[in-house]
Amino acid sequence: MDKKWVYRFAELDEVEKYVGGSWDSVRGLLGGKGANLAEMVRIGVPVPDGFIITTEACNEYLSLGEQLPEGLWEQLLTSLKKIEASTGKSFGDPKNPLLLSCRSGAKFSMPGMMDTVLNIGMNDETVEGLIESTGDPKVAYDLYRRLIQMFGSVVMHIPDEKFEEIITRMRLKAGVKSDTELTADHWMAITEEFKNVFRFHTHHHFPTEPYAQLQMATEAVFMSWNGKRAIDYRNAAGISHDLGTAVNIVAMVYGNLGDDSGTGVALTRSGTTGEKHIEGDYLTNAQGEDVVAGIRMTKDLSDLAKEMPQVHAEFERVAVLLENHYRDMQDVEFTIEKGKLWMLQTRDGKRTSQAAVRIAVDMAEEGLISKEEALMRVTPELLDFFFHPQFDRQPTTGEAVGAKLLAKGLNVSPGAAVGVVALDADLAELWGKKEGKKVIMVRPETRPDDVHGMLAAQGIVTSRGGRTSHAALVARQFGKPAVVGVDDMDIDLTRRQITVGDKVIKEGDFISVDGTTGEVFLGEVPTRDPDVKDRWLLKLLSWADEYRTLGVWANSDYPVDASRAREYGAEGIGLCRTEHMFMEAERLPLVQKMILAEMEVQRSEAIKALLPYQREDFAGLFRVMDGLPVVIRLIDPPLHEFLPNQTALMKELADLKIQLQHAPNLEAIDDLLEQVRNKEHVLERVEVLREDNPMLGLRGVRLGNHFPELTRMQVRAIIEAACLVSRDGGDVRPEIMIPLTSHCNELKVQRQLLETEARKVMEEQGFEINYKFGTMIEIPRAALTADKLAEYAEFFSFGTNDLTQTTYAISRDDAESGFLIEYMVRGILPENPFETIDRDGVGELMRIAVDKGRKTNPDIKLGICGEHGGEAKSIALCHMLGLNYVSCSPFRVPLARLAAARAAIASKG
Amino acid sequence: MDKKWVYRFAELDEVEKYVGGSWDSVRGLLGGKGANLAEMVRIGVPVPDGFIITTEACNEYLSLGEQLPEGLWEQLLTSLKKIEASTGKSFGDPKNPLLLSCRSGAKFSMPGMMDTVLNIGMNDETVEGLIESTGDPKVAYDLYRRLIQMFGSVVMHIPDEKFEEIITRMRLKAGVKSDTELTADHWMAITEEFKNVFRFHTHHHFPTEPYAQLQMATEAVFMSWNGKRAIDYRNAAGISHDLGTAVNIVAMVYGNLGDDSGTGVALTRSGTTGEKHIEGDYLTNAQGEDVVAGIRMTKDLSDLAKEMPQVHAEFERVAVLLENHYRDMQDVEFTIEKGKLWMLQTRDGKRTSQAAVRIAVDMAEEGLISKEEALMRVTPELLDFFFHPQFDRQPTTGEAVGAKLLAKGLNVSPGAAVGVVALDADLAELWGKKEGKKVIMVRPETRPDDVHGMLAAQGIVTSRGGRTSHAALVARQFGKPAVVGVDDMDIDLTRRQITVGDKVIKEGDFISVDGTTGEVFLGEVPTRDPDVKDRWLLKLLSWADEYRTLGVWANSDYPVDASRAREYGAEGIGLCRTEHMFMEAERLPLVQKMILAEMEVQRSEAIKALLPYQREDFAGLFRVMDGLPVVIRLIDPPLHEFLPNQTALMKELADLKIQLQHAPNLEAIDDLLEQVRNKEHVLERVEVLREDNPMLGLRGVRLGNHFPELTRMQVRAIIEAACLVSRDGGDVRPEIMIPLTSHCNELKVQRQLLETEARKVMEEQGFEINYKFGTMIEIPRAALTADKLAEYAEFFSFGTNDLTQTTYAISRDDAESGFLIEYMVRGILPENPFETIDRDGVGELMRIAVDKGRKTNPDIKLGICGEHGGEAKSIALCHMLGLNYVSCSPFRVPLARLAAARAAIASKG
Repeated sequence: MDKKWVYRFAELDEVEKYVGGSWDSVRGLLGGKGANLAEMVRIGVPVPDGFIITTEACNEYLSLGEQLPEGLWEQLLTSLKKIEASTGKSFGDPKNPLLLSCRSGAKFSMPGMMDTVLNIGMNDETVEGLIESTGDPKVAYDLYRRLIQMFGSVVMHIPDEKFEEIITRMRLKAGVKSDTELTADHWMAITEEFKNVFRFHTHHHFPTEPYAQLQMATEAVFMSWNGKRAIDYRNAAGISHDLGTAVNIVAMVYGNLGDDSGTGVALTRSGTTGEKHIEGDYLTNAQGEDVVAGIRMTKDLSDLAKEMPQVHAEFERVAVLLENHYRDMQDVEFTIEKGKLWMLQTRDGKRTSQAAVRIAVDMAEEGLISKEEALMRVTPELLDFFFHPQFDRQPTTGEAVGAKLLAKGLNVSPGAAVGVVALDADLAELWGKKEGKKVIMVRPETRPDDVHGMLAAQGIVTSRGGRTSHAALVARQFGKPAVVGVDDMDIDLTRRQITVGDKVIKEGDFISVDGTTGEVFLGEVPTRDPDVKDRWLLKLLSWADEYRTLGVWANSDYPVDASRAREYGAEGIGLCRTEHMFMEAERLPLVQKMILAEMEVQRSEAIKALLPYQREDFAGLFRVMDGLPVVIRLIDPPLHEFLPNQTALMKELADLKIQLQHAPNLEAIDDLLEQVRNKEHVLERVEVLREDNPMLGLRGVRLGNHFPELTRMQVRAIIEAACLVSRDGGDVRPEIMIPLTSHCNELKVQRQLLETEARKVMEEQGFEINYKFGTMIEIPRAALTADKLAEYAEFFSFGTNDLTQTTYAISRDDAESGFLIEYMVRGILPENPFETIDRDGVGELMRIAVDKGRKTNPDIKLGICGEHGGEAKSIALCHMLGLNYVSCSPFRVPLARLAAARAAIASKG
Repeated sequence: MDKKWVYRFAELDEVEKYVGGSWDSVRGLLGGKGANLAEMVRIGVPVPDGFIITTEACNEYLSLGEQLPEGLWEQLLTSLKKIEASTGKSFGDPKNPLLLSCRSGAKFSMPGMMDTVLNIGMNDETVEGLIESTGDPKVAYDLYRRLIQMFGSVVMHIPDEKFEEIITRMRLKAGVKSDTELTADHWMAITEEFKNVFRFHTHHHFPTEPYAQLQMATEAVFMSWNGKRAIDYRNAAGISHDLGTAVNIVAMVYGNLGDDSGTGVALTRSGTTGEKHIEGDYLTNAQGEDVVAGIRMTKDLSDLAKEMPQVHAEFERVAVLLENHYRDMQDVEFTIEKGKLWMLQTRDGKRTSQAAVRIAVDMAEEGLISKEEALMRVTPELLDFFFHPQFDRQPTTGEAVGAKLLAKGLNVSPGAAVGVVALDADLAELWGKKEGKKVIMVRPETRPDDVHGMLAAQGIVTSRGGRTSHAALVARQFGKPAVVGVDDMDIDLTRRQITVGDKVIKEGDFISVDGTTGEVFLGEVPTRDPDVKDRWLLKLLSWADEYRTLGVWANSDYPVDASRAREYGAEGIGLCRTEHMFMEAERLPLVQKMILAEMEVQRSEAIKALLPYQREDFAGLFRVMDGLPVVIRLIDPPLHEFLPNQTALMKELADLKIQLQHAPNLEAIDDLLEQVRNKEHVLERVEVLREDNPMLGLRGVRLGNHFPELTRMQVRAIIEAACLVSRDGGDVRPEIMIPLTSHCNELKVQRQLLETEARKVMEEQGFEINYKFGTMIEIPRAALTADKLAEYAEFFSFGTNDLTQTTYAISRDDAESGFLIEYMVRGILPENPFETIDRDGVGELMRIAVDKGRKTNPDIKLGICGEHGGEAKSIALCHMLGLNYVSCSPFRVPLARLAAARAAIASKG
């Protein structure tokens, strides 16, 4: 017996037997579209009759050097006979002709990459039969010319505009504006001209033989699998080249046979809100493409209930059938031919974030899917929607409604923001805080002393910097939408304006920023507010909490952040960065005094003066996080970060010296000299502290070992604050964390120092505080020697930002505005390791650290506080590695709860 | 039966039976000195009779609360009887008294830490017997007073100066200058006064009972084990506190009984040159201490052949006996009593580097030791001697010839240096670099900003600081001889002079420094050039080559280096850094042009212009290394290293602008403006290229991927050079190495690029070149993903400098002048990871890389080209990890050959 190359829709059972039954292998043989059509037939959905030529046939055809495999044509004819029987029409019959569509359909969707020919079977004879059966010569000739046009372009590769030109000329000649106004005679004339075009370009007559049309169309689909477009697409999408495409041959149905006919598209639930009602558009007396083309005003599907109540009821029945079967919201195409509903396609429907959450939760509550499935249906990133204002987006194209794109940059902090441009922090604060304006702060890049402006702004845009630039970190911390590294933007701080190409935006002009997409728009784009109390969101998150085993903590430096984190479900503070506290206006001078001190005693004084501030900071955090752990990291960054920039100082000094040359009198000279001396002193210290590679320099625990005073002061502040809050009845759980450890002895020395000071404070205060001591793992050596570190640590927290920088030897700030982007564009790096943890490198070090750490101390608590702690794929890795918790910015907490649940479910199998 | 606490020298067999036979356990029970004495007795060396009280007895005594264990005293008396029998003298006999020495002797030598009492048995009666038997009352009373003095200070803790004062007073009274001039009467009087001192300080009479003397001395030795000095010493030396000390009780012999008596010390071979002849000093009619004390002029041991030919013959017999037995050069003490030779001690002798090599080789050639043993006897660092200048030294005393010692300090960096004193870094640089003088930089201590002066100096001396002081570390780093911590030196920076005692050295005066010994000399001491052709050195190295399995290659960028490396035994070039070639005068402008280019075409032109230079570089290397592999690393450093410094540029610009304000005329203004524009352009590019952390930035393979042109040019230069040299009949083996790989895709892309270009050149040239392609492993991620890298690499070379920087997150340049030193001083880091590979961190990554790399490609060639490749401990690690070769600087090649052999021998067991 010949191999079976062709299966009728009704033969799905046979297919399953042949391939072994899994849906994946069925799709492999029949293609996605064909498999779905056959499946619909099986569950009783009305689908025009048809059959599928398998992907195996395609592969055989191609390997035979473009020859139809033996037996294929005979099988095809047999199946065609069955369609003739079921439709009562005959292929090529001049009286009652059967027309066929021929569509490609591969295992994986390759939109726009493969070819389709409709109306196969039309010729000068059958057109007459169609006129007879439909009574409408305009319809018949329109169908005919479409065949020639599609066949010409798809099968014979005639440029489509050669055909479109003729239609355009005909419209001009007829003096009409749209194709619909053309008459039957016009279409007949067009059909004749199309035949001429065909002959002119191919040197052949248009093939009028229906079977010849069918064979050529089928082979064209086969060959299209190896077309350049398709190969490029597969390369880009990572689809294997040896899958082949199936060919779907289906009886044509007509929505344009009068007012009891029509065509449309629908979603079984709202794709925008997720509400449970069918949402769709249709046109009566129209062909499929017309709905999408937007030539005519479509009707809402609810009108169908009035116009064709029976068809509408049937549609509702089918919608339920499809949802129950596919267990998801469906996106369908349908045609009504003379009061009879035909479904032409079904697939899972696209939806907004809001709809995705609601549909998943509703379906689980309806019992259609399990809670696990509901959780697996919502990708964590979708939750951003609920926590940030958004621009309205076109459901189909995704474009922001009513927006003109100005430029694009890196999407570093999600959400939409609208405001007037302010080009420095002071102005941003003045307008934003004092005058109540909505402000977007725009800077070449930001520095610690810009934070007050950033806090007062709705959003932040910088022309330089990468994902860990200061602007990005601060913006994410405070949930401010931000776009950084907008290269095309030229910021002129002297003229107070921004130029992008030929567009000029003056300070005070409105712009809009989408930190989710990295887009910057001209003017005011309307936004809509987030809804963190969305019933479906809260339900989904409560389910996530049932399934996840990973804890979710938050990174917060201030009580207000911590309080938000708690509201969003954080179970602890995984990282409080104490240095941010040092940056505030009244403290920075003390910090600078400490650094600039040349004598021990001066330094000690400055450090002591900082103590009350730090104590108050910590007390605030402890109060908010009552009953939950708070991990406080001792000071980490290199000291020069607290001092003015060297280049700026040099410029200022140069300016002062020029001024000195023009000083009008002795007094001015004295004054200027004094300024020069001061600046020179600061510059000198800055130069002494300057490091070639500050990332790898005097920071973290090295600082704490170099200035033990600093560790002592911070520990004192923590324990005093803990006593203070405990005394008021608070349940305080401080965990003190040492940054940048590379050798266990560093930890040993710090632990001793710290325990002595803590003990001293507790004795002074007459209070016992139960605190923990641990370290960051953010240097390869720390991971590699975690067994030794675990002797001195009760917990580890992975600092994957720095760990990625050192494991990869990439300075993030430098690289994200440079070669790293180039590497990703060229595919040298598959993904940005600063966004998603690099499993092979950083992930391997984490695995080693987890193994070694637990070997020494099985009870050691393991967490992550790098930014990856808020990214879904990285959270999955953390789950796999068996960490105890992830810690991320407060706004990412819900996302992390969901991602953790999904990781737990996925790992169960 | 009681436990045996006391063993006679003759009972060594019994000891061996008791402890199980190993020499180590014998020494554990008897102490090192006692074990050696017993061993000498066994092999027939004349040793005064005696016995040993075991370390077990000491421990028992201490644990009983300072009580003699049961049976000890009885056993002691029994053994004493045997001595009496063998000597024919009796302990306490007023006629013919036996005197005893009582010395401590622990398992490990603790020089100066433990106690000794001589002449036990002297009292008012026995002194008479001694006068009778020796016929010399002066000798007898001298021995007596010595007993009181030693007993007083060691057993009763009377300050020794109380006794010395009396002798001094007696000398004054007698009007003599030295003790030897005192008469018998004087000594008798002194003895009486000593008894009074004893009574005054202890409120007891001096114990005249010989057995009481013996018991008290024995207990004093036991107790000295827990004295503060001994405990401190053991803590510092890492010796266990529970070993205990043995006590050696030996019959006294006398070298001061006339001209047929004497005493001396000797080495069985020359400690200076290693020549095979006995080298020693002696005095006739003298006591042991006199030789060392230097009171009398000693005679050379060769004189003994004339004075006492029989004794001399006996001595030579004993020396051969000892060497044959101990299989090493021995350092012995002896006494001649009335023509009879007695050996009092033997131990392995100290020796210079030169002697160590010669003795090891000679002994192996004599068949006394095996070649393996010879190799294990010479620590690799000793080879430095043959490669650094040295001062000539007196063979016996070790004194530098023609040198006047000024002061001593710590020997922190080996080699001899001569130059004029410069008291600050700037002057050292001015004289040393600009004026071409030889300079010794002398400072109280050095700081990071002194490094430029240290580099310009021949040698470095500081009055403060220790082995890990800044000066010490920097000096070793750059191979500069250095002596630090010269306490006696008073440096007056105001008067610009150094004072040591009454000597004044002015800035500009000559001094000489020996960093190998820690000596500082006045004036110019003649140095001699190192002798790399030393016969014994070459022999030892040839043996090393027989045993080592690791290859030894060299890092060389220039033909002259490569040629030296080959001479020293390098088997290939493991690292040729191409960027050094870029720095040369005629090339740098081209490199800068390439970097400053704003248009692709400009850049290409500049790169092409570099090609002929590079080709010539490589051709030169290939010619020198004919038949051996040459690993060429493509360009590595960040581009800004080729451009002027940003700060300097800014300062120049500021100056220009001030000049502009004072420009005398329009022409000058134009000229200055032009200069400003040029500088501003360079500055702009410098600012664009500026990176926060250049170590982690755009360099290595990232550069090659960013500017493929650069890779192409370098590959073309390599292959063209290879063709050129091959055409002349050369055997060229280029290996092209990619630096800083972190992801396998980087390698994949470069390999493709490189193979295409290489193929092109070979076709142009009509020559086939067999080249290899590989990568550095110098980033943690590269090590962690070595299995993937090995798919594209034929060899790996560990770049442990960068690997240490990234694994530890330490920027070496910043840290070695900062916290790293502090960490080592404080013991937080056990050793400098940039000197010796950090086994737990970097070593672990290497292990992972070796395993994974070989898993993918079992034939992959593995080497190391970081500086650690020339350091003995790191070489041992490389052997253990199974690398194929180490590559180090040409000067370190011999050391590496030896270290590799030792590692191979050690790992065999």
